[in-house]
Amino acid sequence: MAWGRHVRTAFVALSCLAFATACGPSQAYQEKSVWVELGTNSGPIPNPARSEPAHLLLWHDQVMVVDAGDGVAEQLAKAHVDLGSVQTVFLSHLHFDHTGGLFALLGMRWQGGSPLQGGLTIYGPPGTKKLVAGLLAAFQTGAALAPQKLPDYRVVELNDGSVVTIGGVKVTAASNSHYNLWNGKGAKPVSLSYRFDAPDRSIVYTGDTGPSANVEKLAHGADLLVSEIMDADVALDRIKQSYPLVPGFVFGFVHNHFIKEHLLPDQVGMLAQRAGVHALVLTHFGGGFGGKAQIARLTKIIATHYKGHIHFASDLERF
Amino acid sequence: MAWGRHVRTAFVALSCLAFATACGPSQAYQEKSVWVELGTNSGPIPNPARSEPAHLLLWHDQVMVVDAGDGVAEQLAKAHVDLGSVQTVFLSHLHFDHTGGLFALLGMRWQGGSPLQGGLTIYGPPGTKKLVAGLLAAFQTGAALAPQKLPDYRVVELNDGSVVTIGGVKVTAASNSHYNLWNGKGAKPVSLSYRFDAPDRSIVYTGDTGPSANVEKLAHGADLLVSEIMDADVALDRIKQSYPLVPGFVFGFVHNHFIKEHLLPDQVGMLAQRAGVHALVLTHFGGGFGGKAQIARLTKIIATHYKGHIHFASDLERF
Repeated sequence: MAWGRHVRTAFVALSCLAFATACGPSQAYQEKSVWVELGTNSGPIPNPARSEPAHLLLWHDQVMVVDAGDGVAEQLAKAHVDLGSVQTVFLSHLHFDHTGGLFALLGMRWQGGSPLQGGLTIYGPPGTKKLVAGLLAAFQTGAALAPQKLPDYRVVELNDGSVVTIGGVKVTAASNSHYNLWNGKGAKPVSLSYRFDAPDRSIVYTGDTGPSANVEKLAHGADLLVSEIMDADVALDRIKQSYPLVPGFVFGFVHNHFIKEHLLPDQVGMLAQRAGVHALVLTHFGGGFGGKAQIARLTKIIATHYKGHIHFASDLERF
Repeated sequence: MAWGRHVRTAFVALSCLAFATACGPSQAYQEKSVWVELGTNSGPIPNPARSEPAHLLLWHDQVMVVDAGDGVAEQLAKAHVDLGSVQTVFLSHLHFDHTGGLFALLGMRWQGGSPLQGGLTIYGPPGTKKLVAGLLAAFQTGAALAPQKLPDYRVVELNDGSVVTIGGVKVTAASNSHYNLWNGKGAKPVSLSYRFDAPDRSIVYTGDTGPSANVEKLAHGADLLVSEIMDADVALDRIKQSYPLVPGFVFGFVHNHFIKEHLLPDQVGMLAQRAGVHALVLTHFGGGFGGKAQIARLTKIIATHYKGHIHFASDLERF
């Protein structure tokens, strides 16, 4: 279904300033910052037990989506967040497991939303403008909705050291080592980790990265470190199962990617310990489903380096 | 994670013809046709109990996705279908609740897949070429993957009466009445219903439509009719709850959309009865969550017109 053109006309007719802020879908005011793990899977092979990478930061009236993997709109509904209340999206990097749900989020927010709900800004590494321009070009089929102005979706590209402040939350970007092995033509792409300094606490999200002094620096003294983790051998086995007829040597390259452009449990532990973070939450779970025995084994490895609180997130957990 | 360029090089080096068909992820051969309801929700407001519109037709080695709402990649994983095995996508129309997951499906399939998995063809109404061109433009960020040839994704636009045959399944498109109230500039968009004549049975999918003689004709004598349904008053209440401060008269336009461009229970019953279908499955559930009492009430209305088997689908049910 779509809001018809008449509805939009009627809505706009009502949009006196006093009404404008009250009409749109509203998210419950959050006294304290809340971090929600919308999706805790790793990589572009979908996992029936974990949704694709997506996270949520709530602070007062601010609703920020951090990475937008496939199914992010559905996961937001499960987290009781209206699409129309999302004002900000941060992308860590432009692999499709982190961006796949952006088209749905932007499109459904536009189609199902009130024109009074306000715009949305997408922050991400260089390339984000091109990504969003393509998605907005896909909006212009003429058949999607009665013709109307395209939604107010802005893009701000960030780089290492960029700082933006949104509704009292200071956000700092740091480039990391996720493209260490890049051997394509042109400039090496940028993958970002983010630090969110809300007035009540600091949260650092690694995004996808290998070991990185820059991320350690970014995470220094943070209250919460939300880190990716790669159980490389298990992850590799999972891929081998998907491609049983592919000869084993091919997977050497994949293994190299896992151990140099992602974080092994030892490396996560050292990162958390060196940065002196107060608590550690693991997400972007690379290595299958994360059963009890697997998590106990990984926790033990991390704990040889890091003595703080360690928790492996499940989808929709709140921190 | 991404398959690195080296991996792709290694894969391609192995791609002798004999190997090509054996390497990619394979879907279990289906002796009989299987229809899977991947997502049974209606509309662009996400529903925590029902995923967005997406369906699956399996026949022998054919894997066809029919509409691709948000989260379709995740739902395919839950249905035990590899992304790489999807060769065909049919879009009924270009509202975002039916297309939102296409970017994820295409992107993750490319990123996580073997180059030997083969191409994919997207069939849809006029506008589909523009939609896919935009999504592919969004692929070209240069940061997504090591530079490589864009995937082999082809588009074929269909119209009323179009017929294509894919792997032994004859697919017939029929335009319907989902854009009855269209008042935008330019040509009225096309919304399609599809009939799939597999060698073992015929399945008709209404997509989104209001009452339509053309859909009745398409569905004539089908073994299975998969129809949308709109519980208009409940659906309207749900939207009103999302926008509590919007004056009631505004929703008159939405109500008109529901009753003229979707199918009320009476109208579904009459469609099934007139077309003489052997069984009826309801999807694209418009009206909240579909609890037992609600479904019993709707079934009773449908059954006043249609005496065959009536079933309200849940996500991931197979028929």
